[in-house]
Amino acid sequence: MTDPVHIAGIAGSLRKESYNRRLLVAAQELLPPSTTMEIVDLHGIPPFNQDDEANLPEAVRHLKERVRRADAVLFAVPEYNYGVAGVLKNAIDWGSRPYNDNCWNEKPVASVSASIGLLGGARAVYQLRQSFVFLNMRPINLPEVFVTFAPQKFDTQGRFTDETGRKVLAELLEELVRWTRTLRGR
Amino acid sequence: MTDPVHIAGIAGSLRKESYNRRLLVAAQELLPPSTTMEIVDLHGIPPFNQDDEANLPEAVRHLKERVRRADAVLFAVPEYNYGVAGVLKNAIDWGSRPYNDNCWNEKPVASVSASIGLLGGARAVYQLRQSFVFLNMRPINLPEVFVTFAPQKFDTQGRFTDETGRKVLAELLEELVRWTRTLRGR
Amino acid sequence: MTDPVHIAGIAGSLRKESYNRRLLVAAQELLPPSTTMEIVDLHGIPPFNQDDEANLPEAVRHLKERVRRADAVLFAVPEYNYGVAGVLKNAIDWGSRPYNDNCWNEKPVASVSASIGLLGGARAVYQLRQSFVFLNMRPINLPEVFVTFAPQKFDTQGRFTDETGRKVLAELLEELVRWTRTLRGR
Amino acid sequence: MTDPVHIAGIAGSLRKESYNRRLLVAAQELLPPSTTMEIVDLHGIPPFNQDDEANLPEAVRHLKERVRRADAVLFAVPEYNYGVAGVLKNAIDWGSRPYNDNCWNEKPVASVSASIGLLGGARAVYQLRQSFVFLNMRPINLPEVFVTFAPQKFDTQGRFTDETGRKVLAELLEELVRWTRTLRGR
Repeated sequence: MTDPVHIAGIAGSLRKESYNRRLLVAAQELLPPSTTMEIVDLHGIPPFNQDDEANLPEAVRHLKERVRRADAVLFAVPEYNYGVAGVLKNAIDWGSRPYNDNCWNEKPVASVSASIGLLGGARAVYQLRQSFVFLNMRPINLPEVFVTFAPQKFDTQGRFTDETGRKVLAELLEELVRWTRTLRGR
Repeated sequence: MTDPVHIAGIAGSLRKESYNRRLLVAAQELLPPSTTMEIVDLHGIPPFNQDDEANLPEAVRHLKERVRRADAVLFAVPEYNYGVAGVLKNAIDWGSRPYNDNCWNEKPVASVSASIGLLGGARAVYQLRQSFVFLNMRPINLPEVFVTFAPQKFDTQGRFTDETGRKVLAELLEELVRWTRTLRGR
Repeated sequence: MTDPVHIAGIAGSLRKESYNRRLLVAAQELLPPSTTMEIVDLHGIPPFNQDDEANLPEAVRHLKERVRRADAVLFAVPEYNYGVAGVLKNAIDWGSRPYNDNCWNEKPVASVSASIGLLGGARAVYQLRQSFVFLNMRPINLPEVFVTFAPQKFDTQGRFTDETGRKVLAELLEELVRWTRTLRGR
Repeated sequence: MTDPVHIAGIAGSLRKESYNRRLLVAAQELLPPSTTMEIVDLHGIPPFNQDDEANLPEAVRHLKERVRRADAVLFAVPEYNYGVAGVLKNAIDWGSRPYNDNCWNEKPVASVSASIGLLGGARAVYQLRQSFVFLNMRPINLPEVFVTFAPQKFDTQGRFTDETGRKVLAELLEELVRWTRTLRGR
C-alpha cells in the first residue's frame, strides 16, 4: 500500500495570481506519504481545431506527456460564467484527441475549485464530472473542496491559509491516492 | 410586429467542414420575414487570460461588436467530451469581460447543435443554458434542434438536407424572433 | 406597472420545520407593492403513476388550480442527495400531466433554496432549471437566493433573520414581479 | 473472476407497461455468467418526509434490504420533464436516510433509460449521476444505453427487440459486473 503515486495537477487558469493555481501549490504541501505532484500549466495551448489534430501543437504534446506519466490527475477548476473555464475545457479537448489517443483514459481524478463567490466553483466542477464519463476518467466522490469567497482564504503571499479548507484538501488527496491504488492493475 | 430583427449566429467550431457552421448556413436560408443573420466565426480568439482583459484582443473586440449590434444570438454548439467545446466557451468567457462590459447581457438567445452521435450535442446545450443564467441572456425554451448522426443529414456539398430538421429549425427561428420582439423595450 | 401580481409559492418539503417553507413565509413579508402570495403545500400528493393520470387525485387537482390562478410561481427547493427532492419533482410531474394540461406552461418562475450545507441547495436549483425548459416556464436569471448553513440564518421561532439574505430575497421578488409584467400579454 | 454477482434492478416507473421496467426484463435475459438480477419495484413507497425517517415505512425497508444484499445496482430511469422521475428520486431519497443508514453507499451502479423521444432519457441519467456523488455510489462510465423512440424498439408483447440496443445492454452489464469485481474488497 506504499507504492508511489504521482499526480499531475492541472491549473485551469492562465491568470498569474490565480487562486486555483495556488490551491495546487497548497496541495503539494499536503500530499500523503509516497506521493508526488507536479503542476502543469496551460500556457501556449491554442484553441482546438480538429483540422490540426494530426499534428499536435508542442504545448499539447507536452501536456499529454505529463498526464500520461502521472498515475492520477487533480484539476483546479476555474468557474467562469457558471461553467468550466473555456481555457481548461479547451485543454481537455486537445488531450482527448485524436480519437484513440485520449491521454485522460482510465486516470483516477479529483477536482478542486476556488472562486470569489458564494459557491466556490461548484457549478463548473459538476459540469466537468459529466465530461469524465466520456473521457473515461475515474473520479473520486467525496470529499469535495470548493473554496468560497477566495480572497479571504489566501494571505498576501498567496498562500492558502484556511484551516478547515487545508484539512479537507488533505483528505481529498488521501482519498485520491487510495482510489488510485484500488484501481491500479484493473 | 414586423420591425426588423438581426441575429448574430455564432459558429462554435473552428473546423472547416463543421456541421455546426453548416447549420447556421441552413438557418440563413430559413429566416422568417424581416429577419437577417450574419455568421460570426471564432478564428483568432486566443485563450482567455484575465490579466489581458483591460486590452481586449482585436478578434474579441470584433466578436463583441457583432454581438452588440445584433438583436438576438443563435449559438451553434459543438459537443466535445459531453460538454461545451472549449473553443466556444472560451469565446463566451471573453465576451463577458471585463466586468460591466458583458456583450451577452439581455440578449435573447437560442442554441442548435449537430454531432455524429446519438444525442446530437444535447449535453453541451444544457450546460450552456446554465451559463446563460449568469450571462443574463434570455433563452427560448422550445423547440430544440439537436441534429443526431450528422453525416446522414448533410449532402456532399455540406447542405443540411434533413426535411424534419429543416422544419424544426425554421420553427426555432420563428420562436427566437417572436421572443426577441416580446422582450424588446423591456 | 401597478396591476396586481399573484404568486403561488410551492413549498417543496413535507417536513414540519422545513427551512424552505420558512423561506416562503419570509417572502410573504417582503413582497413588492400590489403583489400577493399564497403558500401551496404538497401534502397528500401520491407518487405519480401515468396509469392514473386520467383521474387526477384530489390533492393534485388542488395544486393545479392554485398554480393556474397564479400569475407566477416561486419554488422553495429542498436539495436531497445533490438533486431536486423527489417529493417536489413528483408534484411537478403531476402538474405537467396529462399531456396538454400542463399547469406550469408559460408561468414566470423563480426558485429559492436553503440547506444546512455549503451550497445552499444550488445543485437542486440548477437541475430544476433544466425541467423548466420542457415545462415551458419562464425563469428569471438573477438574483439567486441560496441560503447556506441554514440553521444559522433562522431564529428559534423559525424566522429567516439573515439581513443580507432578506435583502436579496426582496430583490428576487421584485425581479419576478417585473418579469411577470413584462411577459403579460405575450 | 467467476465469483457470483447479484444485481438489484430498480424499475423507476410505476406504470404497468413501463418501457423502463421492460428494459430490466431484457437485462435479465442478457446477464453475463455467474450473475443474477432481481427487479425491485417502487410501489407502495410514500412521499419522503424527514419527520418519519426514524420509522421507515414497510415498502422502504423492503427496498433497502434488497439493495443491501445486492452487489451492484442497475437503475432504469424514466425521464419526466427533462429530469429524473420524481417517483424514482423519492425512492432514492428514502434509501439514503436516515443519515448513516444510506443503502446506496459504495454500490457499483449503472443506469439505463428508455423514452418515447429523441434523447432516450439521457437528460435524467446525467442528473442522476450527480446524485451518485453524494450517495457515494460507484458508476461505470461507458457504454450507455439510451433507448430512443421506445415504441419502435419493443414488440407487442413488450419485449425489447432492438438488436443494437440488446448488444449494448449486454456490454453494459458485462462492464458493471467487471467493475463490481474490481471494487470488491476495497
